[in-house]
Amino acid sequence: MMDQPLLLNTLLWRTERLFHDKKIVTRTGPGEYHSYTYADYAKRVRRLASALLDFGVKPGDRVGTIAWNHYRHFETYFGVPGIGAVLHTINMRLFPEQQQYLINHAQDSVLIIDEDQIPVVEQLVELGIPSVRAFIVMGDGPVPETTLSPVHRYDDLVAAGHEDYEFPVFDENTAAAMCYTSATTGDPKGVVYSHRAMVLQAMCLAMHDKLNMSERQVWLEVAPMFHCNGWNIPHTALLQGATLVLPGIHPLDADYVRTIEDLRVTGMNGAVTIGTMMRDFVRASDREWDLSSLETMWLGGQAPSLAIMQWWEQTYGTYVVQGYGMTECTPQICFNSIKSTLAERGEDEVYALRQKGGQPIPLMKIKVVGEDGAELPWDGTSVGDFWVQSPFTAREYFEDERTKESMVGGWFRTGDVGAIDPDGYVIIKDRSKDLIKSGGEWISSIDLENALMAHPKVREATVVSVPHEKWLERPLACVVPADESLTEDELREYLLQGFAKWWIPDSFLFVTEVPKTSVGKYNKKEIRGIYAQGGNAEILRRIGVGSAKPVA
Amino acid sequence: MMDQPLLLNTLLWRTERLFHDKKIVTRTGPGEYHSYTYADYAKRVRRLASALLDFGVKPGDRVGTIAWNHYRHFETYFGVPGIGAVLHTINMRLFPEQQQYLINHAQDSVLIIDEDQIPVVEQLVELGIPSVRAFIVMGDGPVPETTLSPVHRYDDLVAAGHEDYEFPVFDENTAAAMCYTSATTGDPKGVVYSHRAMVLQAMCLAMHDKLNMSERQVWLEVAPMFHCNGWNIPHTALLQGATLVLPGIHPLDADYVRTIEDLRVTGMNGAVTIGTMMRDFVRASDREWDLSSLETMWLGGQAPSLAIMQWWEQTYGTYVVQGYGMTECTPQICFNSIKSTLAERGEDEVYALRQKGGQPIPLMKIKVVGEDGAELPWDGTSVGDFWVQSPFTAREYFEDERTKESMVGGWFRTGDVGAIDPDGYVIIKDRSKDLIKSGGEWISSIDLENALMAHPKVREATVVSVPHEKWLERPLACVVPADESLTEDELREYLLQGFAKWWIPDSFLFVTEVPKTSVGKYNKKEIRGIYAQGGNAEILRRIGVGSAKPVA
Repeated sequence: MMDQPLLLNTLLWRTERLFHDKKIVTRTGPGEYHSYTYADYAKRVRRLASALLDFGVKPGDRVGTIAWNHYRHFETYFGVPGIGAVLHTINMRLFPEQQQYLINHAQDSVLIIDEDQIPVVEQLVELGIPSVRAFIVMGDGPVPETTLSPVHRYDDLVAAGHEDYEFPVFDENTAAAMCYTSATTGDPKGVVYSHRAMVLQAMCLAMHDKLNMSERQVWLEVAPMFHCNGWNIPHTALLQGATLVLPGIHPLDADYVRTIEDLRVTGMNGAVTIGTMMRDFVRASDREWDLSSLETMWLGGQAPSLAIMQWWEQTYGTYVVQGYGMTECTPQICFNSIKSTLAERGEDEVYALRQKGGQPIPLMKIKVVGEDGAELPWDGTSVGDFWVQSPFTAREYFEDERTKESMVGGWFRTGDVGAIDPDGYVIIKDRSKDLIKSGGEWISSIDLENALMAHPKVREATVVSVPHEKWLERPLACVVPADESLTEDELREYLLQGFAKWWIPDSFLFVTEVPKTSVGKYNKKEIRGIYAQGGNAEILRRIGVGSAKPVA
Repeated sequence: MMDQPLLLNTLLWRTERLFHDKKIVTRTGPGEYHSYTYADYAKRVRRLASALLDFGVKPGDRVGTIAWNHYRHFETYFGVPGIGAVLHTINMRLFPEQQQYLINHAQDSVLIIDEDQIPVVEQLVELGIPSVRAFIVMGDGPVPETTLSPVHRYDDLVAAGHEDYEFPVFDENTAAAMCYTSATTGDPKGVVYSHRAMVLQAMCLAMHDKLNMSERQVWLEVAPMFHCNGWNIPHTALLQGATLVLPGIHPLDADYVRTIEDLRVTGMNGAVTIGTMMRDFVRASDREWDLSSLETMWLGGQAPSLAIMQWWEQTYGTYVVQGYGMTECTPQICFNSIKSTLAERGEDEVYALRQKGGQPIPLMKIKVVGEDGAELPWDGTSVGDFWVQSPFTAREYFEDERTKESMVGGWFRTGDVGAIDPDGYVIIKDRSKDLIKSGGEWISSIDLENALMAHPKVREATVVSVPHEKWLERPLACVVPADESLTEDELREYLLQGFAKWWIPDSFLFVTEVPKTSVGKYNKKEIRGIYAQGGNAEILRRIGVGSAKPVA
């Protein structure tokens, strides 16, 4: 067979020809959209690629981006890797010191940033990012006043490029992109994605029984493009020729909802909290929203609650689906689709199945390993460390000593604890560091959270481990009430219907909001930190609502 | 990223776990079926693999099969490549001398055959197939009396193997299978398929906007498993966990129809003639058939006529789809799905689009090259040689001098002549050797055939080039009438509605059947050969119906 490498530009070659008239649409304001075709897109990608070469960017160089989800950012997704350089998407929500660490660790040579990020990047320059030798600012009109230097306008660069630039052919294992984990302990760890990994992952996601990403879809990418290649969704949309909708600068819940209605969006993906916030927005809104076009809502980062699945299904006929992934896996590991032989079961059983992390996607091998290092059976109850192996799983962290802790014997130790059921659906019980070990028995914080979030008077809930003199660790629940009548006793009794007595949290603290990480997951480390400073009282002082007053 | 190779056994690993309860069903008699699960299948595959190793089969050895579509043959699909050996599927419909050539050229070390093939293989032994050192016979009960030696019962071998055998990991470019072209000129040419190519092709076919192969499908594989990996359909079904239905030994049209009704088959694939014969069977049957479960019928080998597309759609709601492929491409090159922006056009225009060969599948690059070697525009009218390039396209023929004629500059010259429209749909005009060049202008035999086959009184039609004193070549039509009232003048007038006068065939010969190749394509070479022996008279003598009498 021909030695044709799996390169991102091979996908682009096909899409710009076959789906030349399909659109990429970016929200630019309330009810306002920028729209152009994949043919226009590909020309600008080629211009960008050739301009970067002229600009002195070399194969292997890291090009950083600090940007929202919009068409220019998407141009860098194919333009930068197209010349063999590495797209380093930087998390916009990190503190400047963390961003500085990332840029210096990756040794980014150029930064491509959004206009509203100029003040942040000026701060980064003061902190010291010596590898960066130029700044390219995306946006319309002239570049705003800035101390950044040398500074260039992104569109000027694109205009100076050549739209008939031909991409070079190189080894498919060449680095295409990199992303750092949103590690809540220690410095973030860098993961380098190869062209091969990204092409294979996009192919898997484009398969039946996955995302439902076909050519006719109009797909809204809510998940940030700075995080794990935007879950590889933009690549999958391009591969399939689907209409890609990007929410632009500073989108709010209202913007997602309005965009879906305006553009008849058929599918979207984002953090679980997005699905919750959109629901709350729609509920509180003083007008009806027609979101009937929305067939699929993929919620990730953590498992969506039964309540949120049911609300979307009952209100708009939207099928809420989940997967399971992480930065180290490009990112998808599992995707939850219901096997036809299981779909015939009762509604409750099917919903219980949909609450699981899903089955491994093709090419992905998984196992659960016990304390003695032996593989555990796929019985749905044997809980152990969750290990994975695939052509799109990281072999190492980028120049990082911590590789040897996580990559062992050709497998990646995810750091999650879980079980696998007899049909290969994974059940993630906890991050191993979030496990609660009470009196020698362990308690799943995720199981308790899911149960709490299914309570009609609960808006958000998280359960963390706190130290205990006798049992060593005990669960503590932080709950955002949705109704002011909610009481601690009510929750305790409710949980007792499904859990053993010793699983029930000792305290239920009513808070205004659960602290979240930069990618929208519950920040249990922060809650444990606050607790360490002063127990329940400190939590209530910092994030408490005092009484169970509903949050507007 | 991890260096995890794309191996067939990686697909099996997942399917036997995730889709363990899904079925592989083989027709064994009228209304009788053998059925077992993918879990059973995988155990037998592992047994077969380990038994072959014990039997002395080594990595790289060619293992030949001469067999129908059934579960045992499918076991060899993963069992043989699983140990790094090469599955050589031999065309059952070739003459013994051709089969002998294939076996000797491939140097098959073992032959795995169906029981009904024993007389043929005994003949092959007499002709001389010295590389074969053992014969393994599939079937039930004891091996029938035979001169083959040493001879083994397939099921005994499987029983002696180990069901917990672990497949080795090796380079993804390792040969997995091989197949010879059904070349109508000269000796067949061998194509060797790598694991990588077959995994990638299965992933492409499993994508949305392709075959419609999802887990819930019940797929009937009519295309022979000896030809081009059965179009890679069995691999795709396994990858997706779909129910795979195999028509077993000596299936007839009636068997396909009954199997679809019995098992509520949802999709099938086979040669265009299968779709025609099934229609004719249903029409002539004295009872109603409920084929309403059949959503998708993929007809290949050549383009299905508009008439056959419409009949299935109107009668059973079955969507007839076509692709375009060849042995050298694992085999798919294009697949015809209608882009949403084109689906809005009128019914006639959409049917015209469905008559085209389709768009290139992912990872496949295509071009049309003019006489001067330059690439022609994708305008739907510029006709030239059709070239392709992909990771599942052959780089060479197996130990064959003719490689240098077909593989040039990293591209494969398909030998087809065609155009590409502005949306990337290919329009195959002819095999270059079937082109009719009349008075310096070329005539597409395929365009004429398609038009003729859309005539309600025509059952089959083919158009070939015959020598002509003045114009050098002229078209000749061989037509199988469906109605005895059909006349030559009627066809001539009908064609004049759509074609220039000089395109109209000089003769329309009514025949009982169009001769076909071993894979069901119209055998134009044979018709040209008969014509060379005695012109129209010889054709009418050999295959003519005399008057336009309908064929029962």
